[in-house]
Amino acid sequence: MNSPEDLYQRPIVSVDLAIFALVPAGLEVLLACRGTDPFAGDWALPGGWIHVDKDRDLEAAARRVLADKAGITAPYLEQVGVFGDALRDPRGWSLSVTYMALISPDAFTLRHGGNVTDVAWRPISGDAVMEPLAFDHATILRAATARLRSKVEYSTLPVHLLPEAFTLGELQAVYERLLGRSLDKSAFRKRMAEADFIEPIEGEMRRASNRPAQLYRLKQARSTVFFDRTI
Amino acid sequence: MNSPEDLYQRPIVSVDLAIFALVPAGLEVLLACRGTDPFAGDWALPGGWIHVDKDRDLEAAARRVLADKAGITAPYLEQVGVFGDALRDPRGWSLSVTYMALISPDAFTLRHGGNVTDVAWRPISGDAVMEPLAFDHATILRAATARLRSKVEYSTLPVHLLPEAFTLGELQAVYERLLGRSLDKSAFRKRMAEADFIEPIEGEMRRASNRPAQLYRLKQARSTVFFDRTI
Repeated sequence: MNSPEDLYQRPIVSVDLAIFALVPAGLEVLLACRGTDPFAGDWALPGGWIHVDKDRDLEAAARRVLADKAGITAPYLEQVGVFGDALRDPRGWSLSVTYMALISPDAFTLRHGGNVTDVAWRPISGDAVMEPLAFDHATILRAATARLRSKVEYSTLPVHLLPEAFTLGELQAVYERLLGRSLDKSAFRKRMAEADFIEPIEGEMRRASNRPAQLYRLKQARSTVFFDRTI
Repeated sequence: MNSPEDLYQRPIVSVDLAIFALVPAGLEVLLACRGTDPFAGDWALPGGWIHVDKDRDLEAAARRVLADKAGITAPYLEQVGVFGDALRDPRGWSLSVTYMALISPDAFTLRHGGNVTDVAWRPISGDAVMEPLAFDHATILRAATARLRSKVEYSTLPVHLLPEAFTLGELQAVYERLLGRSLDKSAFRKRMAEADFIEPIEGEMRRASNRPAQLYRLKQARSTVFFDRTI
């Protein structure tokens, strides 16, 4: 595998990111406008090559791409899967190792870098955005959105869309917005207590219109707990 | 991305397979003995390169490798994930796109090909085999086994370990062996009926010691249905 002939047999590999955030209007995904061909001027999921001389592993590559292209550091990151075939990239047989990132948009000031000329949040309607996307990124976004929505049903994943400190009311609102239905407050709180993944921040309250609400944080950063039945 | 300098930046990509079967003694995985370096003479998950001139996509590559190296065609196949870093392969930055395959061992006559000198079923104890495995294949096998075991709890995945025609008793036995506990027969049958994924084969019965049992088959080949709560 070291002669140039062998190397030409190697597929192209990129790491691409579906970065999700939740705003009052609903779920949004961060798109990057491509500055170079193929698909120059088109919107795409932010992505980049693996730097074999710099990146320790795939997740490190994903974190570097995220910081370089959008200025986002240390979010919740989860591998969605790998998409690969002969035709998805005009340059040749290629594969996209896709991660999804969940962030609280308040936590970051977006900036763009590398070959990206702009970054912007776009609303997701169902499992797609209005814009046509470069490569097979519409398919990849659909898979990432489906993964996120299915995990809302049976895990604590949505908590990663909140800032570090949040109230139980805010957590319930995240589930409700993603599920598109309201949940019974006491059943929801019982489920969250059973999952045992958050803890009150001592002495920290959120002053709301009526009475102050206790603030919570994750017991373990970046972890997700699974329920034994759907919510 | 077309000069040799760029090509040297491309990671090595292989497709590797965790092939599972269930025998009376428990879960087994198919291992291949490597005929070439690195790790010549060691056992590994069967795998191979992507052939950029032949394979249409990743799943096609996985199916070709499975047929070439072990003589297995058309099993249930599911992507487990991709494992990639700078150190897992002495030849350089590499990634393994890993699939798991579930088969009924009666359905195939194993044969080995390519650079594989032998293939053999090995029992899985917990999530590992006795033998040390080449590369990081012990880690990959652990991830694949965890995926399989967790899906037993909330999906119809185990059905793919049975031959095409099976009785409800045989299906329940597969769940029980994978879960390591017995299940209530009527609750199990109710759950399977709700999942609505199998159908009786008209006029086909299995003659057992006591009374003949109806044979069933999948409504849709290679599909998996998820339950709304754990079994």
